[in-house]
Amino acid sequence: MRPSSVFNDIIVSIAERSRSLVDLARMRSTPDGVDGLVELCQQLVSTTGEVSIIALAQEVHARFAALDPADHQQFFRVLLEDFGVEQAALRAVVETYLADPDEEHALALHETAEPRRQELLRRLNLSPGGTRALVSMRTALLAAMAVDRELALVDRDFVHLFTAWFNRGFLELQRMDWYTPAAILDKIIVYEAVHEISDWDDLRRRIDPPDRRLYAFFHPRLADDPLIFVEVALTAETPGNIGAILSADREPADPKGASTAVFYSISNCQKGLRGISFGNFLIKQVVEDLRRELPGLKTFVTLSPLPQFAGWLQSLAEKDSPLLTAVREALPLLEDANWWQDPDAAGRLESALMPLASWHLLRARNAGDMPVDPVARFHLGNGARLERLNWLADTSENGLQSSHGIMVNYLYKLEDIEKNHEAFANAGVVTASGPVNRSVRALPAAAEIAAA
Amino acid sequence: MRPSSVFNDIIVSIAERSRSLVDLARMRSTPDGVDGLVELCQQLVSTTGEVSIIALAQEVHARFAALDPADHQQFFRVLLEDFGVEQAALRAVVETYLADPDEEHALALHETAEPRRQELLRRLNLSPGGTRALVSMRTALLAAMAVDRELALVDRDFVHLFTAWFNRGFLELQRMDWYTPAAILDKIIVYEAVHEISDWDDLRRRIDPPDRRLYAFFHPRLADDPLIFVEVALTAETPGNIGAILSADREPADPKGASTAVFYSISNCQKGLRGISFGNFLIKQVVEDLRRELPGLKTFVTLSPLPQFAGWLQSLAEKDSPLLTAVREALPLLEDANWWQDPDAAGRLESALMPLASWHLLRARNAGDMPVDPVARFHLGNGARLERLNWLADTSENGLQSSHGIMVNYLYKLEDIEKNHEAFANAGVVTASGPVNRSVRALPAAAEIAAA
Amino acid sequence: MRPSSVFNDIIVSIAERSRSLVDLARMRSTPDGVDGLVELCQQLVSTTGEVSIIALAQEVHARFAALDPADHQQFFRVLLEDFGVEQAALRAVVETYLADPDEEHALALHETAEPRRQELLRRLNLSPGGTRALVSMRTALLAAMAVDRELALVDRDFVHLFTAWFNRGFLELQRMDWYTPAAILDKIIVYEAVHEISDWDDLRRRIDPPDRRLYAFFHPRLADDPLIFVEVALTAETPGNIGAILSADREPADPKGASTAVFYSISNCQKGLRGISFGNFLIKQVVEDLRRELPGLKTFVTLSPLPQFAGWLQSLAEKDSPLLTAVREALPLLEDANWWQDPDAAGRLESALMPLASWHLLRARNAGDMPVDPVARFHLGNGARLERLNWLADTSENGLQSSHGIMVNYLYKLEDIEKNHEAFANAGVVTASGPVNRSVRALPAAAEIAAA
Amino acid sequence: MRPSSVFNDIIVSIAERSRSLVDLARMRSTPDGVDGLVELCQQLVSTTGEVSIIALAQEVHARFAALDPADHQQFFRVLLEDFGVEQAALRAVVETYLADPDEEHALALHETAEPRRQELLRRLNLSPGGTRALVSMRTALLAAMAVDRELALVDRDFVHLFTAWFNRGFLELQRMDWYTPAAILDKIIVYEAVHEISDWDDLRRRIDPPDRRLYAFFHPRLADDPLIFVEVALTAETPGNIGAILSADREPADPKGASTAVFYSISNCQKGLRGISFGNFLIKQVVEDLRRELPGLKTFVTLSPLPQFAGWLQSLAEKDSPLLTAVREALPLLEDANWWQDPDAAGRLESALMPLASWHLLRARNAGDMPVDPVARFHLGNGARLERLNWLADTSENGLQSSHGIMVNYLYKLEDIEKNHEAFANAGVVTASGPVNRSVRALPAAAEIAAA
Repeated sequence: MRPSSVFNDIIVSIAERSRSLVDLARMRSTPDGVDGLVELCQQLVSTTGEVSIIALAQEVHARFAALDPADHQQFFRVLLEDFGVEQAALRAVVETYLADPDEEHALALHETAEPRRQELLRRLNLSPGGTRALVSMRTALLAAMAVDRELALVDRDFVHLFTAWFNRGFLELQRMDWYTPAAILDKIIVYEAVHEISDWDDLRRRIDPPDRRLYAFFHPRLADDPLIFVEVALTAETPGNIGAILSADREPADPKGASTAVFYSISNCQKGLRGISFGNFLIKQVVEDLRRELPGLKTFVTLSPLPQFAGWLQSLAEKDSPLLTAVREALPLLEDANWWQDPDAAGRLESALMPLASWHLLRARNAGDMPVDPVARFHLGNGARLERLNWLADTSENGLQSSHGIMVNYLYKLEDIEKNHEAFANAGVVTASGPVNRSVRALPAAAEIAAA
Repeated sequence: MRPSSVFNDIIVSIAERSRSLVDLARMRSTPDGVDGLVELCQQLVSTTGEVSIIALAQEVHARFAALDPADHQQFFRVLLEDFGVEQAALRAVVETYLADPDEEHALALHETAEPRRQELLRRLNLSPGGTRALVSMRTALLAAMAVDRELALVDRDFVHLFTAWFNRGFLELQRMDWYTPAAILDKIIVYEAVHEISDWDDLRRRIDPPDRRLYAFFHPRLADDPLIFVEVALTAETPGNIGAILSADREPADPKGASTAVFYSISNCQKGLRGISFGNFLIKQVVEDLRRELPGLKTFVTLSPLPQFAGWLQSLAEKDSPLLTAVREALPLLEDANWWQDPDAAGRLESALMPLASWHLLRARNAGDMPVDPVARFHLGNGARLERLNWLADTSENGLQSSHGIMVNYLYKLEDIEKNHEAFANAGVVTASGPVNRSVRALPAAAEIAAA
Repeated sequence: MRPSSVFNDIIVSIAERSRSLVDLARMRSTPDGVDGLVELCQQLVSTTGEVSIIALAQEVHARFAALDPADHQQFFRVLLEDFGVEQAALRAVVETYLADPDEEHALALHETAEPRRQELLRRLNLSPGGTRALVSMRTALLAAMAVDRELALVDRDFVHLFTAWFNRGFLELQRMDWYTPAAILDKIIVYEAVHEISDWDDLRRRIDPPDRRLYAFFHPRLADDPLIFVEVALTAETPGNIGAILSADREPADPKGASTAVFYSISNCQKGLRGISFGNFLIKQVVEDLRRELPGLKTFVTLSPLPQFAGWLQSLAEKDSPLLTAVREALPLLEDANWWQDPDAAGRLESALMPLASWHLLRARNAGDMPVDPVARFHLGNGARLERLNWLADTSENGLQSSHGIMVNYLYKLEDIEKNHEAFANAGVVTASGPVNRSVRALPAAAEIAAA
Repeated sequence: MRPSSVFNDIIVSIAERSRSLVDLARMRSTPDGVDGLVELCQQLVSTTGEVSIIALAQEVHARFAALDPADHQQFFRVLLEDFGVEQAALRAVVETYLADPDEEHALALHETAEPRRQELLRRLNLSPGGTRALVSMRTALLAAMAVDRELALVDRDFVHLFTAWFNRGFLELQRMDWYTPAAILDKIIVYEAVHEISDWDDLRRRIDPPDRRLYAFFHPRLADDPLIFVEVALTAETPGNIGAILSADREPADPKGASTAVFYSISNCQKGLRGISFGNFLIKQVVEDLRRELPGLKTFVTLSPLPQFAGWLQSLAEKDSPLLTAVREALPLLEDANWWQDPDAAGRLESALMPLASWHLLRARNAGDMPVDPVARFHLGNGARLERLNWLADTSENGLQSSHGIMVNYLYKLEDIEKNHEAFANAGVVTASGPVNRSVRALPAAAEIAAA
C-alpha cells in the first residue's frame, strides 16, 4: 500500500460520511442527466456547509463522469450561459464605481465581475480526487470547444484556476529509475509521445543505465501521475541522430566522463492541462540537478523533432512557393519510401531540404508572428539557441513521415538563456548559430516570399 | 538531512544562479530602503523572464526582511496607492462593457479590475521560500493595519491569494508523536497557545501515552512548520476540568476502552495566516481518523476556555448592567485570589457566575450579531452544540484571570453538525443543551438588557 | 537512488580505501587462479587488522568470481583438506579433556574442533556484498558436490553459518504490489518457479487486483533481492483448479467478501540458500497478516502441484507394481496428449489416477520414511492437513506432464498445526481428510506393496 | 506510528496466538520462580514445533524479567551446571574421534561439545523482542559474575552468539540531527557517558549547528535503540580544551571551511553488549562519511579524557613511587579545589603532572601488558597515534577529579592506522608523537620503576 493512501482513505471516508449527513433526499431527487447536474451545481455554489460542499462536489463529479460527449456540450453551454457574471449586480457596481472610482470600488468591480463558474470550479476542487476530476472535465471541454468556439470563455476560467493551482511552487521534480514503483513507470510508457516506448525492456534502457536519466514533475493533488517528463542521455558529444541513443545494443558509459546532457524526449502527460506551462522550468531544474551531480557536464542540448516540417513543405508545394524553385527536381525522390537508404538520392535531398528546414524554423511564422514549429516555440521561448540541424537523424517511420528524417539541436547555454528569452519574447528574434543562419541565405528572403 | 531538502537545495541553487544571470548591475543600483524596494517590485511585475522573476522576487524578500516597522508602513502605503488597479484602462473597459454588456466584456472587467498587487504577490510566491516570506509579510501588514486602517484593502489581496493557496486540498494531516522529528516538536512547544507546554517532559505527556494524541495540519510549501494543531485526550467520560487531563501523575489508559475523545487545546501557529480558516476541517478529519482507529469512541467533545468572560463581566459591572442585579453581592468575593479554595465563597460564586457564563455564550453578541466569544463562534460555526459549562474547571492563574475558572464542553455530534451549522450561519441560532438553555432563564431577557 | 545506497556506498568506499592501505604489493604478488586464491584465504584467517580483513575478503570474492567450475572444484577441495580442524591442537585438547572432563575443557574441545573454514567464511562475510558473494559461492559448491560427495563436509559449515545469519529474526515480510519498485518486481518474474509469469501484464494480474496478494521475505544483507515469496488469491471457496485463478479475463472481487485465502504458488529465490528453511514461517506470518486485515477470512488453504506424480507412476509401471493392477487398462489413454479434452477418457483416467495420487501423497515414502513428494513434506511438516485432491486442476503443459493435471489442497487450520506438525515430525503421521484417507483404501495396503 | 511497528505488531500477534495454540496447561502448571523457569528452558531446548518455540521463549523472557538478582544468580548457576555439554555423548564421540581422527569425526566433536546453552540462547532469540531481552539478561549475568566468577563460562556463550549476531554487516550508521525522532534523541541524552548532556538545548547544540555531528550505530533487531555513538566537532585546528567545544555561546562555523574533525565523545549504550566491539569500525566509517561530504577535512583527531589518571597518581603516591621524586612538593597544591584558577599553582602543577600523564599513557601497563588507560587501549588498538596532551583542557568538576584537567588528542592518520594497529596488537608498541615521547624522558625509565 502507498504511504499516502492512508491519508486519502480518510478523506474519502469523510466524503462518504458527508453523503450520509447532507440532505440526500434532495440530492437524489434531482433528475438524471444534464438537468440534474446543473441543479446540483446551483446548490453547490449556494450552500455554506462544508460537509454539504464536499458531498455535492463529489456527486457532481460522479454524474459528469456518466455523461456522454453530447451531454458535455450541453453542460458546458449551461456553464457559459447560467454561471457567468450576475449582470444586474455588476451593473450596480459599475454605477457606483463611475460615481466614485476609488480602489475600494475598483476591487468591488473585480469581485462582482468574476464569473460564478470560478467559485463553482473552486468548490468542485474540494472533494477527494477533485483536482483530477477537473483535469478530466477540461479534457472534455477542449473537445467540446472544437465544435463550439464560444466555450473558450468557459475555458478561460479553467486556465485561470489551473494556473494558480499548478504554479511551480507545488511541482515536485523526481528522478524515475528502475527502483520507481511499477505503477508510475507504467504511466510513463503510456504517456511517452515523442519516441514510443515499445515495452518494459525499452523503458529499462532509458532509466536504468548510468548514462540515462528520466525526470518528471509531480503535483501533490495528482500524486503518482506525472505532469510532464524529460528523458536525458549523457554523452561525449552533441548527438546527430536518435538511433544511437535508443539502440538496444549500445554499451553504457560512465556518466562521470560525459560532457554533454542531451534532452531527447519531452512529453506532456495530461491533456486536460494543455496550455498550462511547466516545461520551461522542468528543463532548467534538470540542468541544475545534473550540474550538481556531474560537474563534468558542460553542454546541455536537445535532440528534437520538427514535427510539422513535411506538412509545411507539402503546403508550400501545393501553393507553388518560390522557396521551392531551386529544389523542385529533387522533391519527387521522396516518393520512394526507402530514399534514405540510397546514398545518391539522400545526398541530393540533403542539399535540397536542409536549407528549407532552417527556413522553416527561422522564418516560417504563424498568425501571431511566432515560429510555426511548436517545439521551436517552446525551446526558443525558454531561452535556448537553435544550434544545429541533423540530416538522417531519425529514420523511424514516424521521423521520415513528419520531418523527412531531420532533427534539431537546441542549445541551453545558461548565461544566455535570459537574454535569448527576452529577445524572443519581446521582438520575436530567433537566436541561432552561424551555420544555421547562413544556411537560409541562399533562399529567397522572407519578404519576397510574402510578396509572392 | 531531511528527504525534501535535496529538492529545496536545487531550487535555491537555481535561485542563486538566477541572480548571477539577470541584470545584477541594475538590481544593485536600486537604492536601499523603501524606494529601492518599490523599484524592484515595479520591475518584478513587468518582466517576462522566468529567471528574472525568481531573482527579483528573492531580492524583494531579502530587502523587505531588512526593513523596520516604520518602513513597512510606508511600503504597504505604496502597495495601496501605486499597485492598485490601472484606472485609465479600467475606465475604458467599463465604457466597453456598458456599450455591450456581454460575458466577454464582463470578464475583461474582472481582469482589468484586478489590483496589480495580486500579480505582484503571485510572483513573490515563486521564489524559494516565497510562501513563507509572504506569510511573514502579512504578519507585518496586520501590525501596520492596526495603525492605518486603509491598508485593509491591501490585506484583501493577501487573503484572496492565501485562501486559494491554502485551500484544504493541500493540507496534510499528520499525527505527532514521540517519534516525530525534534525540530517539529520544538515548534509545537512554542506554538501551543491554550495550555502552555512547560518543557519536553510536559510535551511527551501529551503525545506519547496511548490515550493522548496530537494532530497537526501541514502545507507542502511550509514544510515542517505546522499551520494548526489539536490536542486530544481519550477518556471514559466527558471531563469537567483540565487539571486531570494535564496531570503529570495520571496513569495512562488503554485507548480501546475509551468512549470519549476530548479536544482540549487547539492552537493556530501562523500569525500571518489569521482569518484563513482550516480549523473546522481539522476537527472533522481528526474525528474521522479516530473513529476508524477506535470504533469504541462514541462522544467527540471539546474542553474549551471562555477567554473573554472575566473582561466582559468587568465591563458589565462598569456600566452597572441589570444582568448583575442579583449577583452584585457575590462579586467582591473574587478579589481574594484564593477564593476558589474556600468552599463557601466558591459555592456562592458558582450560583452567581454560572448563569452569567451561559448568558455570555448564548446571548452576548458583537457588532455582527454573532457571539462575542471567539471560541464559541469557532465551534458553533463548525456545527458543534454548546453542551455543558464546568465550574472550577481551570484553576491555573490564566484560567482564573480570564474566565474565573469556568470551562465549556462543545459537543460534535456528526449527524447534527450540518444542521447546527446552517442554523448558526443563516440565523445566528446557538444550539445548546437543555441545562445550558435553562440556566439563562433566571436572568433578565436580552431585550430588557438592551433596553436598559 | 535507493535510500540504502548511501550507506552501501560508504562501505564500498571504505573497502576501496582499505585496498589502498593494506600491503597491496603482497596481495598482488599472489599468483592468479586457485593457488593465489588459497594464499589470500590463508592471509585472511591469520591477519588481525580490520582494514586488512575487509580488503582481503573483497579480493578473495573478486578472484573466486573469475574462476571457472573446474577451479571451483579444486578450490573447495582445498577448503576441505587445508581449512579443516587443526588436528595436532585438537588431539592435545582431547587429552586434556579426557584427563579432566569438566565444562571448561569441553568448551575448549568445542572451540578447537571448529574447522578453520568457519572463521574463513565469517571473515568473507565482512566485505561489502560479502553475504551475497557467499550465497553465490555456495551455489557453486552445490554444483561441485554433485560431482564430489566429500565436499558435503564443507557444505555443513556453510549451512551452519547461513542458518545463524538467516534466522527468522532478520527476515522482513513485505507485500509486493503495483507500487513496488520495478527492479524488485523484475526479480519476482524471474524467480517464479511454479506457475510461470509470462510478462508484466501477467505479473500485474497477480499483485494489483484487490483480491490478489504477493508476499516476500527479505534479509537486510540481501536488500532488494527476495529470499522466498508466496502468491495468494482471496476467493469465496477452496478452488479446484489453477486456471480460474490465473485467468486474464476474470473480474476482481472485493476482498472483504472473501472467506478463503489460497496460497497458489511458493517460490524459493536463492539457489545458494537451498535447505535453509524460511517457508514455514512465511506462511504463518502471511496468514496472520491477512487475518488482521480481513477478519472475514476463515479458510487458509494451498492449491499445490504434485511435481513428481507422473514420474513416480512411470516407475511403478516399469517395475510392474501391484498398485497398478486395477488401472493398467486406463493408463495408455494418457498417450494422447489431448486426453483431458475427451470426457470419456478423462472420466476413466479420473477413476484410475485419483486413488493413486492419494496413495502417492499418503503412503509413498523415501529412504528417510518421509513422503516422496517434496511439496507434501513441506506443508505437512508445517502442520497443514492433506485436504483434497482436484481432478483436471492444472491442464497447462507442465501440469499435465508432471502430475497428469491433478492438484492438491493443503489446509492450514491454525488450532491444529502444532498438533499435526508434531504427529508428522515425531511419528511420520500424515494428517488427511476423510475422503483422501478413504480413497486409498481400495488399493492394496502399503505392506503388501513393499512385500511385492 | 513507526513504519516498522506494523511488522512488529504482526510478530507479536503471532506470538500471542502461539500462546493460545501450545499446551498452555502444561506451561502454566510449571511453578513460579527459578524452578519453573528452568523447566520451561528444558522444554524449549527439546521441542520441535516452531510455534511452541516462540511461545516458550516468550514465557521464559517474561518470567526472567520478574526475578530478582538473587534468583538471577541461581538461574545462571543452573545454566552453568545443567545446560552444559552432554558428557556421556561427548565421551562417546571422543572415543570415535580417537579411533578415526578424520574431519568428519572432528566436526562431530565440535558439534557435540557445544554447550546446550547455545541452543537455548538461539531459541530465546526467536521470540519478538528476544534479542533485546537477551541483552538485558546478559546485563544481569555481568552483575552475577562479579559475585560468582565461574559464571564466566556461561558468559562465553553469550559473547560467542552476540559476536555473530552483532557482526558489522548488520550495523547501520545513522547521523542524528534535529530532525531525528525525539524518542531516539531522548535515549542519546540518557546514554551520553563522557560529557553529560544537561538538557534538550545542550543536545541541540551538539547536533543542529552545521559544524557539529553525531553519528550512531543501530542494529535491526534493536531498532531505535543506538548501540554506540560518537560526537564530532568540525574546527579550524586541533582543539586543546573541551570548554570551547561545548560552549553555549560560540558562533557556528561553515563546515566547508573546516580542516579538522574532532571526535570529542564516544559512548557505548548497551551494558549487556560489553566487550562486543563496534567502536573501531564506527570511527573509520564516520571518517569516511565526513571525507566524502567535506573534502576540506584533513585531520581526524580525538579530544579524549584520561579517566584513571588521578587514581593512578594517588596509588603511586601511596606506594611512594620513585616516579614522583621530582614532583612531590607540587602535589599538595591539588588540595585546593580551585588550584587551576591560580596561575602560579597551575604553572607548577603543569610542569609536575604533564610528564607523568605521558608516562601514564605510554608506560603504565596492566596485567596483560597493555596500557592501563582504557581510552588509550581503544584508540591505539584502532591504529591511532598518541598525538598531544593538553593542560587545563577539562576544568569541569569531573575533569578535575579524574584527570586533574588534562585531556589527550589521539590522531587518526588513515595511511598509518593499519601499521600502528599491528605494531600495537602484536608487540604492544604505542605510537606517539615526538613531543609526547620526549616528555617522559626526564622521568626514570620504566625498568627502574619496576625494580623499585
